[in-house]
Amino acid sequence: MRLSRRGSVDPFIVMDVMEAARAAEAAGRHIIHMEVGQPGTSAPREALDRLAHDMRAGPLGYTVGLGLPELRARIARHYGEVHDIDLDPARVVVTSGASGGFLLSFTALFDTGARVGLGAPCYPSYRQILRALDLVPVDMPTTPEARFQPVPQDVQAHALDGLIVASPANPTGSMLDRTALAALAGACDEAGAAFLSDEIYHGIEDAIPAVTALTVTDAVHVINSFSKYFSMTGWRVGWMVVPPAHVRSVERLAQNLFICTSHAAQRLALHAMDCRDALEANVAVYTENRRLMREALPAMGLGRFAPPDGAFYFYTDVSEWTADARAFAAEILEGAGVAVTPGLDFDPADGHRWLRLSYAGTTGDIREGLDRLAGFLARRGRRP
Amino acid sequence: MRLSRRGSVDPFIVMDVMEAARAAEAAGRHIIHMEVGQPGTSAPREALDRLAHDMRAGPLGYTVGLGLPELRARIARHYGEVHDIDLDPARVVVTSGASGGFLLSFTALFDTGARVGLGAPCYPSYRQILRALDLVPVDMPTTPEARFQPVPQDVQAHALDGLIVASPANPTGSMLDRTALAALAGACDEAGAAFLSDEIYHGIEDAIPAVTALTVTDAVHVINSFSKYFSMTGWRVGWMVVPPAHVRSVERLAQNLFICTSHAAQRLALHAMDCRDALEANVAVYTENRRLMREALPAMGLGRFAPPDGAFYFYTDVSEWTADARAFAAEILEGAGVAVTPGLDFDPADGHRWLRLSYAGTTGDIREGLDRLAGFLARRGRRP
Repeated sequence: MRLSRRGSVDPFIVMDVMEAARAAEAAGRHIIHMEVGQPGTSAPREALDRLAHDMRAGPLGYTVGLGLPELRARIARHYGEVHDIDLDPARVVVTSGASGGFLLSFTALFDTGARVGLGAPCYPSYRQILRALDLVPVDMPTTPEARFQPVPQDVQAHALDGLIVASPANPTGSMLDRTALAALAGACDEAGAAFLSDEIYHGIEDAIPAVTALTVTDAVHVINSFSKYFSMTGWRVGWMVVPPAHVRSVERLAQNLFICTSHAAQRLALHAMDCRDALEANVAVYTENRRLMREALPAMGLGRFAPPDGAFYFYTDVSEWTADARAFAAEILEGAGVAVTPGLDFDPADGHRWLRLSYAGTTGDIREGLDRLAGFLARRGRRP
Repeated sequence: MRLSRRGSVDPFIVMDVMEAARAAEAAGRHIIHMEVGQPGTSAPREALDRLAHDMRAGPLGYTVGLGLPELRARIARHYGEVHDIDLDPARVVVTSGASGGFLLSFTALFDTGARVGLGAPCYPSYRQILRALDLVPVDMPTTPEARFQPVPQDVQAHALDGLIVASPANPTGSMLDRTALAALAGACDEAGAAFLSDEIYHGIEDAIPAVTALTVTDAVHVINSFSKYFSMTGWRVGWMVVPPAHVRSVERLAQNLFICTSHAAQRLALHAMDCRDALEANVAVYTENRRLMREALPAMGLGRFAPPDGAFYFYTDVSEWTADARAFAAEILEGAGVAVTPGLDFDPADGHRWLRLSYAGTTGDIREGLDRLAGFLARRGRRP
């Protein structure tokens, strides 16, 4: 039977690493996981207990397409509490994770052949979702000077119909400040390009809190999720904030493409938003892990990394060690018992020079992982 | 900010009915809901209890893109138990409801502009999802003689790149037998068209069990769900069975478009598959409700309906009563306090002559709804 061209998206190279790590563990080795992009923690215990109660109380059938009204209102209130923004709940759309948000935004905004700009390195699925929708992902190289983020000139230079930014970003952890966000939003507005801001790592920051794009413009699709800060990866619930004039269009798409987001996940999200203490305890772990990483990596010869402003990743230049980050990741797994992610999934052009190291694990694991890495690199030596 | 053409999908007309019903209830009226397309029952109690235990046991993070291996294996075993088919679990893909299955199938199978045939009347979102992906939904009129289902000649006559069938169907409840399925599969094969079988209402049948398309061919995408028979609508979990050569393509799409289906929903689905007694008790209610409907509708002048072979709907011709089923549904809500669905969402061309009546409610509600309908129609009289 036929298969489509649009469906032939790239495989994840990290899957090879994860499979090799799994095989090593099955063979009895102890592996430290610094390749994973999700918290090791569960949703807050108290929120889970409240969901268990909801499960006994009613059938949890379909919700309306835009999501539970009380969750949309609670998310709007969150923007007041965290960003001092007075947000109309009518602009909030509950989605099936950030993934669902991308599908809704891309279909609401772009027609076949539209050019959507991505600052490389970036989250790999942007490219593949765009391709699956017969849109054109446009990889744009970034520079250390611009914190590995797109710059306003990119919008015209690449003739974009849309631009996606992420702050804090995956895999770099780098952020865009208010000035940078405003300049990018302005460039999109001027060019008639759609502006999309992926804010999935908001709440997990180093010294400076992340700025939402809603601070600088209402002409933006903001995409966020309960997966990271709220520690709810497997539940698949997130949200978008869209311009008032886009709500009806996104609602109709959501009704047809998804019917609704998991009702139970929506209830859990609502409860999790009241568990600030448990969530901040998770953030404190990331902060300590980040401190350990920032101290240890330069000492072992991995000091050329993107600014780790937030999220839970270091994206580090390994070109002094290898010409092939994929082979190097395999070597590290074999020689150090540490799983790390080669850069190629994030940046097909330049990713062979980079590794992403996640510190989403426990502090004990990160400490052990760093010790193993340091020992391995010292034994191995740089490339000749 | 720009909006796309592909994103401007049609609204659901039933939403007007649901909003009017909600407003009537808010004003203190008692409304019988025969417009809803979901069971009023929750997931099996025992399955929910087991999920509550799972929630205490671990974080329920991301699963692999194809779904929990034990759930895929259990679904494969289900085909052995119910259909006497020896199915390789590797061909089973867990999805975010049937909705997720459609997105995966359509992107895996079709490129921009592909023509995908639908027997009208049908599930409205087929059309809208196809449009959102820049594919071309081709509405094909059906006949009572063919049980309101497509016929093999349609494939060539409409120059289809693909054909979707549903058995039991929404809104008609009608089924395709093995001979009819084989003929349709054969016509698709001959024309090089993809064949998709929506089996979401399997397990809810009248006298004769539904036949899966896997009985007649492996060259098919079967789409199913835990929403109906397993009574898990709001959890958003379903599955597909695809040809062995399609698994890798669908896997990559699933990883990128969804990451995974809700982990908790997957666990619940696994547990629900062991709750056969509770689920069969639900089916017994539908069977009794169907018996009441089949008896009462002809007596009140609504006897021209599609064959109610399964699912929980009657699709009934109301052209003796009205030229405008939408206005008639509003009249019934106002005059009888019963919410019903006009046919236009299912069939833009001919739906103004039809109503869909759902009997997914309790037997008490269905009995009351039928009494109210009969009284209302007797008072009102047919159109002149």
